[in-house]
Amino acid sequence: MHHSLLRMSLCSRRPVRVPITLLPQYEYIILSFFSISGAGYHSESKAKEYKHVCKRACQRAVDRLNAGALAVDAVAAALVELEDSPFTNAGMGSNLNLSGEIECDASIMDGKTLHYGAVGAISGIKNPVLVANRLLNEAQKGKLSAGRIPPCFLVGEGAHDWAINHGIAPCPSEKMATKFSLSAYKRNKRKMEMAEKVESGFNHQAKKRRQSTENENGSGLLDTVGAIVVDREGNVASAVSSGGLAMKHPGRVGQAAHHGCGCWAENTRTQNPYSTAVSTSGCGEHLIRTMLARECSSAMQSDDAHQALLEAMQNKFISSPFLASEDCVLGGVIVLRCSRCCDAQPSPDIQAILVEFLWSHTTESMCVGYMSAQDGKAKTHISRLPPEAVAGRSLAIEGGVCRLVETRSTVD
Amino acid sequence: MHHSLLRMSLCSRRPVRVPITLLPQYEYIILSFFSISGAGYHSESKAKEYKHVCKRACQRAVDRLNAGALAVDAVAAALVELEDSPFTNAGMGSNLNLSGEIECDASIMDGKTLHYGAVGAISGIKNPVLVANRLLNEAQKGKLSAGRIPPCFLVGEGAHDWAINHGIAPCPSEKMATKFSLSAYKRNKRKMEMAEKVESGFNHQAKKRRQSTENENGSGLLDTVGAIVVDREGNVASAVSSGGLAMKHPGRVGQAAHHGCGCWAENTRTQNPYSTAVSTSGCGEHLIRTMLARECSSAMQSDDAHQALLEAMQNKFISSPFLASEDCVLGGVIVLRCSRCCDAQPSPDIQAILVEFLWSHTTESMCVGYMSAQDGKAKTHISRLPPEAVAGRSLAIEGGVCRLVETRSTVD
Repeated sequence: MHHSLLRMSLCSRRPVRVPITLLPQYEYIILSFFSISGAGYHSESKAKEYKHVCKRACQRAVDRLNAGALAVDAVAAALVELEDSPFTNAGMGSNLNLSGEIECDASIMDGKTLHYGAVGAISGIKNPVLVANRLLNEAQKGKLSAGRIPPCFLVGEGAHDWAINHGIAPCPSEKMATKFSLSAYKRNKRKMEMAEKVESGFNHQAKKRRQSTENENGSGLLDTVGAIVVDREGNVASAVSSGGLAMKHPGRVGQAAHHGCGCWAENTRTQNPYSTAVSTSGCGEHLIRTMLARECSSAMQSDDAHQALLEAMQNKFISSPFLASEDCVLGGVIVLRCSRCCDAQPSPDIQAILVEFLWSHTTESMCVGYMSAQDGKAKTHISRLPPEAVAGRSLAIEGGVCRLVETRSTVD
Repeated sequence: MHHSLLRMSLCSRRPVRVPITLLPQYEYIILSFFSISGAGYHSESKAKEYKHVCKRACQRAVDRLNAGALAVDAVAAALVELEDSPFTNAGMGSNLNLSGEIECDASIMDGKTLHYGAVGAISGIKNPVLVANRLLNEAQKGKLSAGRIPPCFLVGEGAHDWAINHGIAPCPSEKMATKFSLSAYKRNKRKMEMAEKVESGFNHQAKKRRQSTENENGSGLLDTVGAIVVDREGNVASAVSSGGLAMKHPGRVGQAAHHGCGCWAENTRTQNPYSTAVSTSGCGEHLIRTMLARECSSAMQSDDAHQALLEAMQNKFISSPFLASEDCVLGGVIVLRCSRCCDAQPSPDIQAILVEFLWSHTTESMCVGYMSAQDGKAKTHISRLPPEAVAGRSLAIEGGVCRLVETRSTVD
C-alpha cells in the first residue's frame, strides 16, 4: 500500500494545524485498510510481540476481505486474532479482576446497517467479540417469537448462556489466564494490600488517602484491542475488545461494551459526507463519560481530518468538561474516514475511495498496524509520546492517506 | 406553580412549528420543577394509580429540595418512590425475564459534576437507582486504593455484591415480584409457547417466522420510570429505572443503564447556553441505538425548545437512520431546560431562572407529573396520541414554561 505517514506529537494542549498532504492517485488497486490499537505502555522488549500480533490480525482481516467478506466480518476476524494473543488484555490473557476472575467486554458496529452488538462482564468465552458479532447478526434478522425485540447488549452469566445456546463453545476460565496475567494479579494484590495498610493509618483523612496513590496505575492495564475496516464496497466497520482494568470490581463494564464509547462506524449518507470508523482503547470510565468513539466520528465529518481529530482529542477528551476533575486522562483512538473521490476516475469501471487513517493517544504509547488487501504484509508501528510529554495530559497524533481503487466487475 | 401548557399531538412525520408563549414574570418564588415519565399504554382504569404514583414521587423530590438537597439527591428520591410502586416496571413489580427472574437497570446523572452512575441486570436490590447514585457519589471521591479508578457502571452479581458492601440492603427476589408481574409472566410464557408452536411449522421460513408476530408486544412492557429535576441553584439532574422488556433474555441491559441513552443532565457552561435534563422510557434497544437522551439534550441548545424536541423526536428517533429497519419505534422523553433570565430582575437579591419543560412520546400514552417547591401538590397528566395516530410512527408533544425565582439569602 502506498501511503503517506505524518508524525506529530504534541505536548501542549493548544491545537496545532498540520495539513495532511493528499497523495496522487495510484494506478493499482487497494481494496481495504484498517489498523489496530492497544493503548498503554509498550516496553521495547514487548514491542516486537505486539507488532507481530497486529500484523497477524491485519492479515486475518485481509484474508477475509479477499475472500469476499464485508467489513464487519473482517473486523471480527481481526479481533479474534487480537483476543487470542496472550499478550493483549482481551480474551486470552485478560487482566484479572478483584476476585481473580476474567470478565471481558466487547462490541462491534456495522457502518452499513448501523447495527451494534455488545457483551459486558462475560466469563468463560474465548472470543467475546464473536458473541457481540452474533448479537448483531441475530438482531438484524428482526423480532423473536411473540414479537419480542432481540437484545443488542447482554452481560454476565446471561450473556454466557446466550452464547452457548447460539453454538459458541465455552472455554474454562483457567485456560484464559496466562502466567503473565496470574503473576500480575498477585503483584497487584500485594500492592493493593500494602497501599491499604499504609492508608489505614490515615483512615480519617479520606481525601488524602484517595489522592495519595494517584499515579500508581501499573503498566499494561489499558492494553486493550480494537480494529477498523473499510471493505471494497466502501462499507466501514469497527470493533473493540477488552479484559478491563486490572483489579476492577466484578461486574464492572468499561467502554468496550458501551455503545458510542468503544467503537463507532457509520457509512456515508445524506447528512454525512464521509464514512467513518473509530475504535478506542484506554481507561474505560474516561472513555464512557466522554463517549469518545462517537465524538471522534462526528468530528470526522469536518473538512480537515487531522485537525478535527486533534481538536476532538483536546476538547472532547483531555480538556473535556466531563473529566474536569481528572488530571490524567488516558486513552487512544484509531480512526478512518473515507469518501468517493470526486475527481475524474481512471475509467468508468473503476471507482476510487479516498481513505484517511489516523491514530492519536494520550498514553505513553500505542501499537498500530495497517494493511491493504493489496499488500503482502501489514505495516506496524509503535507510536510514542515525545520524551518531554506527560502521559494523560499530552497527545500524539499521526496519520496517513491512501486511495482504494475498486474495480467494478464487468463480467456477466 | 404558574405555568402554561401547550397540547399538541402529531400524526404526521412532518415537523410543525408551535411557539411556546413565555409567561410574564411572577412575583413569588418557584424553586424547582420536575416531571416523570412512563411510556406504554395506560388504560383508563390504571390511570388513577399511575397519576397517584407520579404525585407521590414529585412530593418526595420537592420535600428533599425544600430541605436543601441538590437536584441529584431529589431526583434519586423521586425514583425510589417510583421504583417502590408495584404499578411501575421498575424495582418492585418489574417485568420478569425469560427465566422468571427480575433484573433491573438504572442510572443517574448529575448536571453539575457531569458524573454518572449506572447498574445493569441487577437482582435482589429493591432500589436499583440508589446503587447507581452511590456509584456516582463514590466516583466523585476520586481514586481507590493503589490508584484504581472507581467504576461508573456495574452489572449482574458484581453490582449486587458492590451494593451490599456499600451498606445497601438486599431484598429477596420473591418480594419484588407482584401478583400482576407473576400473572403477566405466565400469560407471556403461554403466548410465547403458542407462538413458537405455530411458528415451528414454518421453521424453514425463518424470515416469515420473525415477522409474523411483529405487533404482539403486550401492554405495560415499556412502563419504566424516570425523573428530571432543577434545584434552587439551577443545577439539573436526571435519572431512570427499568425492569426491562418482559421475557427479555437474562443479562439483557436496556437504555436505562446506558450512558447517553436513558438519562442525561448538563448544567449550562461556556458552549451550552442552557442547562438541560432528559429522561427516556420505551424500547431499550431503540433508545440505545439512537442515544435518544443525549440527542434530545443537544437539540435543546437551539433557540426554540419545542421545535427542537419535535425535530429530535422525528429525525433522531422515528426516522432515525439507526432504526431504518424498524417500522414501529416506541419511546418517550421528558425534557427540561433552563437559563438565567437576561431581562431585569425584580431585585438584585432575586435571580430568576426560566424553565421550559416538555414531554413527547411515540407510545400510545405517557403519564407525566410535575411540581414546584412552591406548589401544594403535583399536577399529573396522561398524554395520549390522538385516535387517528399510529403508535411507533407518530408522536405527541406537549410542554410548558415557568419561571423559578431564587431569593438569595442576604442574612449574615
